[in-house]
Amino acid sequence: MIERIPNNELRSKVMTAQEAAQIFKDQMIVGSSGFTRGGDSKVVLKALAERNQIENIKITLITGASLGHDTDGALAHNHALHKRLPFQVDRTLRKEINNGNVLFVDQHLSKTSDLISNGTFPIDVGVLEVAEILEDGHLVPTTSIGNNVAIAENAQKLIIEINTSIPKNIRGIHDIYSVNEHQNKPINICSASDRIGTDTIKVDPKKIVAIVFQDIQDAPGDITPPDEQTEAIAKNIVRFLENEVKQGRLDNSLRPLQCGIGKVANAVLGGMIDSDFENLTMYSEVFQDSTFDLIDSGKLVFASASAMTVSPECYNRVIHHIDNYKDKIVLRPQNISNSPEVIARLGVIGINTSLECDIYGNVNSTHVIGTNMMNGIGGSGDFARNTYLSIFVTSSTAKDGKISSIVPMVTHVDHSEHDVDVIVTEQGLADLRGLAPRERAKVIIENCAHTDYKQELLSYYERACQERGGQTPHLLEEAFSWHTRLRETGTMKKA
Amino acid sequence: MIERIPNNELRSKVMTAQEAAQIFKDQMIVGSSGFTRGGDSKVVLKALAERNQIENIKITLITGASLGHDTDGALAHNHALHKRLPFQVDRTLRKEINNGNVLFVDQHLSKTSDLISNGTFPIDVGVLEVAEILEDGHLVPTTSIGNNVAIAENAQKLIIEINTSIPKNIRGIHDIYSVNEHQNKPINICSASDRIGTDTIKVDPKKIVAIVFQDIQDAPGDITPPDEQTEAIAKNIVRFLENEVKQGRLDNSLRPLQCGIGKVANAVLGGMIDSDFENLTMYSEVFQDSTFDLIDSGKLVFASASAMTVSPECYNRVIHHIDNYKDKIVLRPQNISNSPEVIARLGVIGINTSLECDIYGNVNSTHVIGTNMMNGIGGSGDFARNTYLSIFVTSSTAKDGKISSIVPMVTHVDHSEHDVDVIVTEQGLADLRGLAPRERAKVIIENCAHTDYKQELLSYYERACQERGGQTPHLLEEAFSWHTRLRETGTMKKA
Repeated sequence: MIERIPNNELRSKVMTAQEAAQIFKDQMIVGSSGFTRGGDSKVVLKALAERNQIENIKITLITGASLGHDTDGALAHNHALHKRLPFQVDRTLRKEINNGNVLFVDQHLSKTSDLISNGTFPIDVGVLEVAEILEDGHLVPTTSIGNNVAIAENAQKLIIEINTSIPKNIRGIHDIYSVNEHQNKPINICSASDRIGTDTIKVDPKKIVAIVFQDIQDAPGDITPPDEQTEAIAKNIVRFLENEVKQGRLDNSLRPLQCGIGKVANAVLGGMIDSDFENLTMYSEVFQDSTFDLIDSGKLVFASASAMTVSPECYNRVIHHIDNYKDKIVLRPQNISNSPEVIARLGVIGINTSLECDIYGNVNSTHVIGTNMMNGIGGSGDFARNTYLSIFVTSSTAKDGKISSIVPMVTHVDHSEHDVDVIVTEQGLADLRGLAPRERAKVIIENCAHTDYKQELLSYYERACQERGGQTPHLLEEAFSWHTRLRETGTMKKA
Repeated sequence: MIERIPNNELRSKVMTAQEAAQIFKDQMIVGSSGFTRGGDSKVVLKALAERNQIENIKITLITGASLGHDTDGALAHNHALHKRLPFQVDRTLRKEINNGNVLFVDQHLSKTSDLISNGTFPIDVGVLEVAEILEDGHLVPTTSIGNNVAIAENAQKLIIEINTSIPKNIRGIHDIYSVNEHQNKPINICSASDRIGTDTIKVDPKKIVAIVFQDIQDAPGDITPPDEQTEAIAKNIVRFLENEVKQGRLDNSLRPLQCGIGKVANAVLGGMIDSDFENLTMYSEVFQDSTFDLIDSGKLVFASASAMTVSPECYNRVIHHIDNYKDKIVLRPQNISNSPEVIARLGVIGINTSLECDIYGNVNSTHVIGTNMMNGIGGSGDFARNTYLSIFVTSSTAKDGKISSIVPMVTHVDHSEHDVDVIVTEQGLADLRGLAPRERAKVIIENCAHTDYKQELLSYYERACQERGGQTPHLLEEAFSWHTRLRETGTMKKA
């Protein structure tokens, strides 16, 4: 255990999580590791939440993305959060956000490090999970990198959690690159597998004020098996990509894939196993089980991301045999995994989920009925805006058909009509490239909407054309009537 | 004149505009030079419009951006356009678009060349204005580059207009770079003045099927002198940037500037002349008069764009003394001037205009009352999404105060809350960086809204918080009531 701190001076900083949590003060800005459950603080932030059972400390908490082990929930439950960014998925925290008790800055994941570096959020304390601290103080990350580089560079003080459940030979799967140290230079990644950095995070050891040992595995990722709907969506995407190959716009190894998180993403990657595609690569944010299944199948030759969130089975398969994967995966800081520059250069194919799409191709990824936050935009905008192909997927209905995911007008726009190339539901696929809004409406309603809502959508569109016209025909007084009906009657269906 | 075609074989292709216009056939896809009035087709597209007075040919027309000399209007008036992209500013064309007679694909200017290269829009005929055709067939562009490189590479046939009013020594102000020839490589521009290409456009001379001489200057750019409002907006921006310098986030030469087109942009750049900033650079889309005024004043040391649109006085000053400016300006293809990669790397400060902003920081740049197209998104999204600072400006009211430009909810989102850092009106400035939606609402209403609308905006916000809550409190049934009132009564003000 202690051999994970070869530096004698640093060994004197070892303390308990409760002692380390005393470092936090009210109104501090705290930066923490953790990206979609991977590599998050396991004990120190939890200790802060416990401390707040009797105290009243409120911090601004900046992470890579969401945390695991109910940490966000515990912090929110104990009123320890003043502001939170850039992403979350926790039920308790979500409630506090929507009640207006926690301020949530829903941000492109590639952008947060800029706000840390330029002093918009000067980090008082950073909390980073690592596998070990080297003699010179440099850090070996664990299962995510997230914003750890920007936090290490900019934090006044650092609390380090050493996770001894992570084997030391994890060193080498990371590619650490500081955008700050290379200002005004190209980020020289020209294929998903390119490495441009080092394998550890540089840090001034004087900043390290506390070291805490823990041995807690990442909270397991959800893996919902594909159902009929997600399989149909996956099939529609695979068929579309096969046709792109046939048309000569893509070759048989496609372009690097990015897949959002969740069962649709898992189904899409699962669908690739039985496809004719070969030598696939991935330039994404997060590895899920399906990533490693696709690697093991031989279809996926290299995968790049910022974090992993997998099932316990997959965790053991990968983490305890990490040497088998070292030439096939790399983890990067999230301003590199989600870098608009690299995404554009590689011509990534981005597949992200939406809550609702409208008939003109605008996408809402975040807000329920226009007001309530679900999780956040995450990296979907980083990819959608700069990908070669920006694909959004959703089931055509939700809540047993009471909600249509295709609506006259979305109640919140995260991805504008300008950034959406393809919309896919289990019903079919709408290829919007090169189409004007009136063309898009017809193909989205025809191909993607559920039968139960098709006629009413068409009626809205036709009346809007007739009564108002314009580039994007809308009846503003009726545009949200489906959502109003849902709020009032529990369904978007007319009585 | 004829010495502008040193190649004998090509000299045989010289013909009149009317003869060249016979090359167009119904349903063709035509790519043309022209970006914000600069370097557009002056006679051949006009001849097509005339031909259509008795014929019925409809084309898809793809340009850099808007055209000058009423060309778009003449084509629209004579029903020669089936589809138009990616930008326009013409009154007649706008009417036809909003009537549903012309399909308009409103697109990020950096993206159009992708649709040309990947075959979504296979170009049948390209029409390019040049200053001369070299012996090997290569082309010297004039006052814009736009999508000329992609058109030259992909068109089946090319019609060349040689503009003899452009002096031959314009050669050298262009930096021609083909993204296609450098796939998966960094676009190696690390400062606004970097050159990475050649001074002519490579072309297969066999593609050139017609050459037409003309000597028509670009249609003059509008230069409305600053008024009280635009000067107040400019002052707010200069004061904000001065404070960024004071805070240490920027140095005294700022970062490369991008300014949208129009009187606000001219006022902002005008305001820079009397500022303490020095050694400014510009990485933008278009040069206006103010660009050259700022260069002549010594404040602006280098400017990069894709086109110029200036007054006749400025045109003469620059074009006829172009050697004086060759080390201070460069014109680039629009997928380079607007490249997300380069914009992000240089940390451009983007200043763009909006039609309306909402209290949560979403911006509508394109649609009047949600339906009718004004001009198009242009390059504003290319910049806003990837700049270091994304600033949007608007007067707080329009139409003698009958319209508030700050509204409860915008009727069309071109730039989502995630992409807007600062909103500026003549009333003041809202710095939204790091703020959650509820914080943004307060600062936008307080700093940017006009007094006449402030109370009602605040009332909307407070009732939305109380009655619905959420991350982004809205009363959906009331969100567009201001627009509905405007449509019905001619004003957003309550009776």
